[in-house]
Order: sequence, then C-alpha cells, then structure tokens
Amino acid sequence: MEDKILLAHGSGGKLSHDLVEKYFVPLLKNPLLDKLDDSAVLELSGRLAFTTDSYVVSPIFFPGGDIGKLAVCGTVNDLSMSGAAPLYLSLALVIEEGLPVADLQRVMTSIQKTAEEAGVKVVTGDTKVVNRGSADKLFINTAGIGLIPAGVDISGSKARPGDKVILSGNIGDHGIAVMSQREGLQFSSPVESDCAPLNKLVSEMLKVSSRINCLRDPTRGGLASTLNELANQSGMGIRIEEDEIPVQDAVRAACELLGYDPLYVANEGKLVAVVPEPDAKQVLATMRRNQYGARSDIIGKVVGEHPGRVVMSTHLGASRVVDMLVGELLPRIC
Amino acid sequence: MEDKILLAHGSGGKLSHDLVEKYFVPLLKNPLLDKLDDSAVLELSGRLAFTTDSYVVSPIFFPGGDIGKLAVCGTVNDLSMSGAAPLYLSLALVIEEGLPVADLQRVMTSIQKTAEEAGVKVVTGDTKVVNRGSADKLFINTAGIGLIPAGVDISGSKARPGDKVILSGNIGDHGIAVMSQREGLQFSSPVESDCAPLNKLVSEMLKVSSRINCLRDPTRGGLASTLNELANQSGMGIRIEEDEIPVQDAVRAACELLGYDPLYVANEGKLVAVVPEPDAKQVLATMRRNQYGARSDIIGKVVGEHPGRVVMSTHLGASRVVDMLVGELLPRIC
Repeated sequence: MEDKILLAHGSGGKLSHDLVEKYFVPLLKNPLLDKLDDSAVLELSGRLAFTTDSYVVSPIFFPGGDIGKLAVCGTVNDLSMSGAAPLYLSLALVIEEGLPVADLQRVMTSIQKTAEEAGVKVVTGDTKVVNRGSADKLFINTAGIGLIPAGVDISGSKARPGDKVILSGNIGDHGIAVMSQREGLQFSSPVESDCAPLNKLVSEMLKVSSRINCLRDPTRGGLASTLNELANQSGMGIRIEEDEIPVQDAVRAACELLGYDPLYVANEGKLVAVVPEPDAKQVLATMRRNQYGARSDIIGKVVGEHPGRVVMSTHLGASRVVDMLVGELLPRIC
Repeated sequence: MEDKILLAHGSGGKLSHDLVEKYFVPLLKNPLLDKLDDSAVLELSGRLAFTTDSYVVSPIFFPGGDIGKLAVCGTVNDLSMSGAAPLYLSLALVIEEGLPVADLQRVMTSIQKTAEEAGVKVVTGDTKVVNRGSADKLFINTAGIGLIPAGVDISGSKARPGDKVILSGNIGDHGIAVMSQREGLQFSSPVESDCAPLNKLVSEMLKVSSRINCLRDPTRGGLASTLNELANQSGMGIRIEEDEIPVQDAVRAACELLGYDPLYVANEGKLVAVVPEPDAKQVLATMRRNQYGARSDIIGKVVGEHPGRVVMSTHLGASRVVDMLVGELLPRIC
C-alpha cells in the first residue's frame, strides 16, 4: 500500500477495493457493511428521521476533535434534534490526491470511536479521489437514519408562548478551537472543541418529558442563528438573558481579540430545547446529570410579542434585537 | 441576490437561508422538505435500502447530462440495484466560492427534472461553501432510501452456475462523453452520456421474475470491474462473449484513439443482471421494451470453473482473463 492517497484509490477498481477492505471495513466492521453491495439493507418500521451534512472543516485536525469525529457527531446530532434515536450512517469521502494514508487512518479511527460511543453503525459508503488542488485534503459527507419513538413530535415550528428555552452548556468552544488551530493562536488555557454526540442526552430528556417542543443544535451561525430559526419557524418571539448564557473565559477572551460575538460562534456539542414551563425543571435536572449537559441552564422563554424576533436582555439591563448571522463569520468551521 | 456564490452562502446565516428558500425549495418543493427542520421525517416500514455517493465529475456540464442529473441517477440506480424502489434522496452541496449562481440554478433544475422522472423526492439537504481553490466548482453528495418489495433478494453474492448475464445496452458512452468534453475532442457523431434513472426498468424486470440474483450498474471501473465484483462476491466464474457486448462506433473510435478498453469505461445508465436460465428470456424481452433497455442482450453466463475470475471469448475465438481495473483510467468521471 502506498503512503499517500492516489487518484487510482478512487477509480472503482482494484486500489479502491484494497483501500476499502484494508482500512475501512476492518474498523467499521458490521454485518450490513460487510456485504459490500451497492446499498445496505435495513429492517425498519415506523417514523424515520433522515438527514445529511457535508463536513469541510479546515484544518481537518483541531483541539478536541477532527473531521471524522465531527462528521459522526454532526449527523447524529441532527437526527437527535428531531427526537430520533440515530441508528445508521452512510459515509462518503472526497479525498484530495496526496493525502497521507496515516491521516486517513486517524480520521477513520476517530469515526469508529465516535460511532461506537453514539451506538450508530456505518452501513454504506463511497470514496472519491480528486486531483491535487481540486479539493482541500478531505471532505466528508454523512447521511443518517434514526427512529422517532412513538409520542415524540418535535419541530422548530412548535415553540409556544411561555415555553422555557434551555441551553445545554457554554457556547463558542468549537468555533474558537478550530479558529485558533487554523491561525496558530496560543491561549494560556487552550480551547477544545465541544464536538460530542448528543443522542443519549436527548433520549434521557425525552424519557422525563414527552412534551419537549423544539430541539436544535446551534452549529453554523451559532446560538443567535438557531434561536432566530426557531422564532421564524414558529412565528413566536424569543426573549433571552445575556447573564444566563455561559461562555468560558478563554473563549470570551479570544472573541474579544478577534472581534467575534460568541452568540454567532459555532458549537458542535450543544443543544437548545424549548420545553413547556411545567416540564422545564425536570428536563433541566435530567440534562445536568449527563456529561454533555452538566452546565445546562434556562436562558430565556418564548413570548407572544415581537413574532419572529429574538430579543436579549443585556448584562447592563438594556434590550437588544439579536439578528440572524449576516455574512460569514468563520468559514469552514464544520 | 449576488450572481456568484459567496462564502457567506454557506454560513448557516441569512444568505444560506435566502439561497435555500429562493433557489432550492421552490424547485424541489414537497411537504417533507418544506418543513426545513434538521431532519426529514418519513413514515416507512419494511426492508429499506440505504446508499450514498459523492459526485465530483469534471466538467460539471457534459453532453447528455450534468453533475445534478448524475447525482440523482447514480443514487437512484444504486438503490435499484438492490431491488429497491427508490423513494427519498438527501442532497448535499459543496460549492467553490465564485460559482455562477446561474450554473447552480441549471444544476438544480436538472436535479428536479431527473428526480421527477424517477419519482423520487429530495427531502433533506445541506450546503457548504469553501474558499476559492479549495474545491473544483461543485461537488454533490446524494444519499438515498428505497423500499425493497417482499420476495426480492438481490446480492452480488448470489450468482450461481448456469445463470445468464444480461447487459442492458451499449457500453462506454458516459466515460467518453465526459472525456471528450473535458479534452475538447470532436467526433463526427458526438457521444452523449447514457446517464439515466433505471428504477422503472428494474421494477418491470422484477415483475416478470422474482428470481433475479444480482443487479449491478457498471459505473466507475466499467463492465469489467462490475463483473469481477460479482465473480468475487459469489465465488463463481463468469464467462462472457466479446461479440455480444455492444459498443457504438464513435465510442469504439474514441477508445482506440485514446488507448482505452471500452470494458473499463464508465456507464451511468446501464445495468448487468444475473438471472437463472429459465427466466432469462422473459427478463430480456421485458428489458427490451423499456427505453433504457432497448439494446439489452445476454452477454455470457456464470460458471463453476475459474472461481472469482471473468473470462472473455474474444472475437477471434481466443479466451482471455478480464481483470478488475488496476490504476485509474479516467479520473473524475462521476
């Protein structure tokens, strides 16, 4: 085997097969993948969630994760945000010719570990190689299928006045971790990406309340864009308290240095839940018992006023409209 | 709206939303996609086929198709090759900053038309934009879900001695069409890609025979690699007749000029079926009645000898081993 990926590894011929059988199948081994037919065959029935995301993060390795971990977490989390239990992933790689095979192995190992933690199986895949300069090292697409338990009905459109808005922890870690790696910034306490699979957290939340209305992970566009999406889809207003939104000191310092607002910086292991007031405390307590929700808090509520708008009460007691992200803050963050 | 794609169109913020709502949702309109939640929710039960492919073809427009048509046909066909009726697609775009919006619209229109012909719905999607030079114009990933009818059991491992090998038409058109466009080659009769959705052809075949053992579309690596895969997976030998394999004159001429063997050139609208001898004639007759199978023929058979190997009786009466593609013939053909 070569130590760099060649165009021929994407040919569909012998080298493609060798790559798959040497590096992919042994790591991701499961009876569905092992058949190597054009499609995986799954026995499933009920309400299925289906989602896709491409990952183009640069650099592909960063503190707290890499593109492989991200590709599993991102799609697992998208499924989870519809209330589904994620079950199966597809995995499609677009590799730039010349990528060290060792880098690919490191990414694949990370995919395997994260899939194992989340309890999902990679059941079908594809590999393409493009000539040098036609892609940047490695792009990954994962699509996912999950099963939505009976009684669960979650949608961005369901927020109702009086519902509490819960955030699962501090914001901005992922964006700042990637950015600091990319720009070679040094902080006294290095920031790690929060990249994590949230499906177990969500399943625990759904066990204590069947009335959770919305779930969403504030990735690209940050918390501000996610709250705006929820306000738009539901036609409600959202009111949040600046003081309730946790930002770790190193992230705050980096944001000040770089001129970013943490509300717009991407997260990859956080969620926002919109929960009817009577269930909010119990959901919050449950979230805090999970390692990925330990710093959860109620950050605001859904209101009937200012439909489609997010308004924040600031630290100084003023109110300001929090818009959706306009323009691009941090390209290629996920 | 700008006339070129900007990095901000992939930000997850306002321009991302505008792009999706102006150009994608109106074309691909369906109740599942329109909800714009993180996942589409599907009611399904039974044996599902699940597959993924990334498309990196260069150039993105070529005679007979474009990357959009290819992205729908390729995944529809992969699902069909497991005997499934394709139902739902995901659509993920990685766009190079600077792509003309008009090109994107043309590709999206082509996706819509092909999805309509195939009777599949795009239900979930993702858009990423990477900086200029970090990708080559446009890469597309589609994953697909289909439903396998009761009684259908198709796998590359199921070929049995005596089974007939049927090919649905002339080979090499797609590869030569893309190559001639890329290299600016002129032929007296221009070669068009055969890119087509084969799901209706397959469903007609399955109606007349529930005993079809293998189906596979000879894409990357061509007919030779596909037959080798079937021989490997089943542990059987395959014997084919050179004289029975149709190649149109312009493709043969181009292959001679370029030094290619048509057996290794990619197709995007052809299939190989392995069918027990008693059902072969009826399956063949059915295929010939479909527009995409009009030139179908029996090109060989499965044998107990030379397990895992494909042997061809040549025009001159000799026998030669047809190997799997080694190395890369035509990069970025799909």
